[in-house]
Amino acid sequence: MQIKKLNIIKIGGNIIDDNDALIPFIEKLSQLTETCLLVHGGGKQASALSNKLGIETKLINGRRITDTNTLELVTMVFAGLINKKIVALLQAKQCNAIGLSGVDANLIRATKRIKTNIDYGFAGDVDPSNVNIELLNNLIKSGMIPVIAPITHDGKGQLLNTNADCIASVLAIALSSLYKVNLIYCFEHNGVLKHTDDINSVFPYINKQSYLQLKKDSVIAGGMIPKLDHAFDAIENGVDSVVIGDALQLINLVNEQKNEGTHIIA
Amino acid sequence: MQIKKLNIIKIGGNIIDDNDALIPFIEKLSQLTETCLLVHGGGKQASALSNKLGIETKLINGRRITDTNTLELVTMVFAGLINKKIVALLQAKQCNAIGLSGVDANLIRATKRIKTNIDYGFAGDVDPSNVNIELLNNLIKSGMIPVIAPITHDGKGQLLNTNADCIASVLAIALSSLYKVNLIYCFEHNGVLKHTDDINSVFPYINKQSYLQLKKDSVIAGGMIPKLDHAFDAIENGVDSVVIGDALQLINLVNEQKNEGTHIIA
Repeated sequence: MQIKKLNIIKIGGNIIDDNDALIPFIEKLSQLTETCLLVHGGGKQASALSNKLGIETKLINGRRITDTNTLELVTMVFAGLINKKIVALLQAKQCNAIGLSGVDANLIRATKRIKTNIDYGFAGDVDPSNVNIELLNNLIKSGMIPVIAPITHDGKGQLLNTNADCIASVLAIALSSLYKVNLIYCFEHNGVLKHTDDINSVFPYINKQSYLQLKKDSVIAGGMIPKLDHAFDAIENGVDSVVIGDALQLINLVNEQKNEGTHIIA
Repeated sequence: MQIKKLNIIKIGGNIIDDNDALIPFIEKLSQLTETCLLVHGGGKQASALSNKLGIETKLINGRRITDTNTLELVTMVFAGLINKKIVALLQAKQCNAIGLSGVDANLIRATKRIKTNIDYGFAGDVDPSNVNIELLNNLIKSGMIPVIAPITHDGKGQLLNTNADCIASVLAIALSSLYKVNLIYCFEHNGVLKHTDDINSVFPYINKQSYLQLKKDSVIAGGMIPKLDHAFDAIENGVDSVVIGDALQLINLVNEQKNEGTHIIA
């Protein structure tokens, strides 16, 4: 039996914030004939609402420090506003999207991150063994597109905030037991850049050895580090292909065109 | 074949706002052995966030006027914060809750209310024929408890705000084709009160004729009018029983005890 392909697409905050990028992205997504699942972030909108409410935004290495107020805020923005907006836009394109968070049907159970020298607050760490792949498989087999917001829970009633890049990687690893998974990180650039001020300086591929060196040399820094860590985690744990590229080149990325985006190689 | 019973439980804002009421309510819900579906409102929390953000709250006869900012706000509060909080609490009680809005999997398609002398803005009117009962039935048959937030869509990408009492009634009517539906409106009172200042002055039942008279005499007024309109709509359109009562008496209400709550009679 041939294993079916599943595209797990993570869409970043700069695309979600900008209707001029989001609407064409949704259009391209609706044109895909292959099975897919969408994971979204939305950190920029969360930060904007934080400012309006006078809640301080604290990020360390691209990861949000989640106190009680921030947890309420990200739950509202990620699982409410952004999730339902994306689902409504997909429904309008006759794509049967269903918006879920990690809490729903115990989709992704997480562990509150242990406080070390940094206290991340209500941040949840996740593991592929705690994903309800049966539910996702049933939804996908019924022709639905799961749209996942990066809110998880600990199974004891506590909501937790989890990095969306991490959720995408963990779902990709978990679903690799059922599908040939293509993990696609979509954002506003053509791929991972050699020089952040040159949008055409895309690495066509990065392997683990070159990644470690680029990180050491600070060519790769900030929010790209956790993204690439999650990307390598996926490729090293059963995911068939991992690529990072431009949201508006979604169709080329799904078709695994070698000259599109940055391909992650184990 | 005996038709299975389904309890559709609507939980109001005063219960959701108050952990001293919400936690015992969730505890009682988790003790139910019968099949159920939960619909929640959350208007008070939406109004509180409105105040913080400086967005004016406008209500006419208990119905919210929904401008663009208000729509974003209720989507965040209803489909995000409240929905996921309730689902996480149920999951902690080993109830396999799944939080959805009317947008998800095209669960409830609505029509933007036509502007008359009042412009309700992005308010959605709903009809039992536009409910995805197949999805709800599949989830219920799989042992899940759907937890529904009162956000709908028009199928063209527009989110709409819909009264939660109305959603509960429309879902009850739609699911009456598959189940013997018991519709239970839970709130902070023992039932519909004769005198709003006497919490024990509960009508044990109200029929249509007495309702029309009580409305005329202003004994029933404000937000109770749409609630009762939706309750009568349900009982007149195939729903087996409709009762309005105290959230903390949920088990008695589910067991259809005649001395508990206000029973609606066609």
